[in-house]
Amino acid sequence: MSLASWHDGPARDAITGYVARVTEEGGADHVPPAERIAVFDNDGTLWCEKPAYLQALFVLARLREQAQEDRALGERPVVRALLHGDLAGAAAADKDEMMKVLLDTHAGLTTDEFTAAALRWLEGFRHPRFGTPFSGLVYAPMLELMELLRAHGFRVFIVTGGGVDFVRAVGSQLYGVEPDDVVGTALRTHFDRRDGRVMLVRSTDLAGSPNEGPPKVESIHAHLGRRPIVAVGNSAGDREMLEYAHTGQHPSLCLVLDHDDEEREYAYGGEAVTNPDAEPILETAAGFGWTVISMRRDWSRVFP
Amino acid sequence: MSLASWHDGPARDAITGYVARVTEEGGADHVPPAERIAVFDNDGTLWCEKPAYLQALFVLARLREQAQEDRALGERPVVRALLHGDLAGAAAADKDEMMKVLLDTHAGLTTDEFTAAALRWLEGFRHPRFGTPFSGLVYAPMLELMELLRAHGFRVFIVTGGGVDFVRAVGSQLYGVEPDDVVGTALRTHFDRRDGRVMLVRSTDLAGSPNEGPPKVESIHAHLGRRPIVAVGNSAGDREMLEYAHTGQHPSLCLVLDHDDEEREYAYGGEAVTNPDAEPILETAAGFGWTVISMRRDWSRVFP
Repeated sequence: MSLASWHDGPARDAITGYVARVTEEGGADHVPPAERIAVFDNDGTLWCEKPAYLQALFVLARLREQAQEDRALGERPVVRALLHGDLAGAAAADKDEMMKVLLDTHAGLTTDEFTAAALRWLEGFRHPRFGTPFSGLVYAPMLELMELLRAHGFRVFIVTGGGVDFVRAVGSQLYGVEPDDVVGTALRTHFDRRDGRVMLVRSTDLAGSPNEGPPKVESIHAHLGRRPIVAVGNSAGDREMLEYAHTGQHPSLCLVLDHDDEEREYAYGGEAVTNPDAEPILETAAGFGWTVISMRRDWSRVFP
Repeated sequence: MSLASWHDGPARDAITGYVARVTEEGGADHVPPAERIAVFDNDGTLWCEKPAYLQALFVLARLREQAQEDRALGERPVVRALLHGDLAGAAAADKDEMMKVLLDTHAGLTTDEFTAAALRWLEGFRHPRFGTPFSGLVYAPMLELMELLRAHGFRVFIVTGGGVDFVRAVGSQLYGVEPDDVVGTALRTHFDRRDGRVMLVRSTDLAGSPNEGPPKVESIHAHLGRRPIVAVGNSAGDREMLEYAHTGQHPSLCLVLDHDDEEREYAYGGEAVTNPDAEPILETAAGFGWTVISMRRDWSRVFP
């Protein structure tokens, strides 16, 4: 419940000061418990997103299997580029085909089968640099922040650009966030009965937009129905979600994680993987006066 | 926490027996707390849906205002039929136009403005037969059932065919169900900035399908990410949701409310307002062996 992995400093002060302010009974800035909603981005905010999104590695592993079973598939230029890790090349060759190939990797699975496949792959994963399993890629200080918020009556949600079913498969184990408190990019599923049992089958169509940027705000409303007062992110895809919390009627806490720690993790600042042309989030944060967390200076340890 | 408004009988026994069974530590049918998910339909299950859906009356009240401001609108055959309460006539004249007219009633409002408009209208509402405000239309025994479930580690969700933002406006006050635990029919909203504040503006496009039948199961997965083990409904639109709970890996409790109490409420059995040609839910319940709640015989009181 304490912020044991946080050094004394402005980020830690901003957090503890804010929590004290909005939870003080009778205080001018008191926020009722039901409105204490906190939203966290996932990739690069709660866990390490380098050298690549975990989910991208999972999807490519399946594509590799499919290409071995189906040689014609493996010879398509887009697929060859993908399997060489050249996402930019694949996108340049044919972005629509690339998306279709990636979405097809787990088409037709039931939602239960998908979760099982994700967990099976995750169990075998080791980080190429750190050698740790996926559970070792979580930021310990962020777990402490989530605990601190919960201990003060907040409800904590994950709002990820990643696939909602992928993050849900591990959200409870990693973060104590149950599946219904994860919002993310989703595929449509279709109702079916198999041997008398109701199943949901994954399609290859996105349900709505990829959950980045303005759609994060729309999906927060669709799922939560309330405006958050705490928002935590690390890239341009989180800007609108942070602004949403920032411009509500209650005092807000907007935190941006700066990856500036080459030694213990990576140094890539506010660079947005999925949206390289957007205003870097660290500039946006400076403009709005949001609190920047320096991984290097503010955290006494990074991983659990 | 006790089922004080429930008579001794098979429905009450089914509920208390089930809850004891799945919560008994070390028991063969024990279900871990995280998987204790209960879903309740709203109209006709948690509150009275006669003589008309509350939300339909709200929408028609707004249409009446609009028709007074815009005489050409008021003279359109579809609108005239609607304002005479003749929904069947309006649908027969032009169903697409009818839907568009109804969805247009609150187009362009921000989500906050819509919630305020719904609450304002609800405050003035009195039931034409009972004379009670909307808070008097809730079924007291269902509130007790929700409390009993929560006291045993269940999380309770509303899965309604009604508009999600309409039900969210009152869910906390009426049922103790927070906005993020309400799933329903939704319109798309659009991100906007007004005077520097982030807002969401309601469109007239449905986000996905109306939340009845198979889409209820799809939306449960989209929002909850888990299969429920308790499902409660009262019409054919709840069938698939009940089947979803029924065919999971855990023992389930499926409850169907039979409106058979003309004296204290209404007697219309398992008739489905929105889907009159479907198999009546009471027949479906008999086929699956689901527990039917007789309002007349099982409840010692209906309203709070």
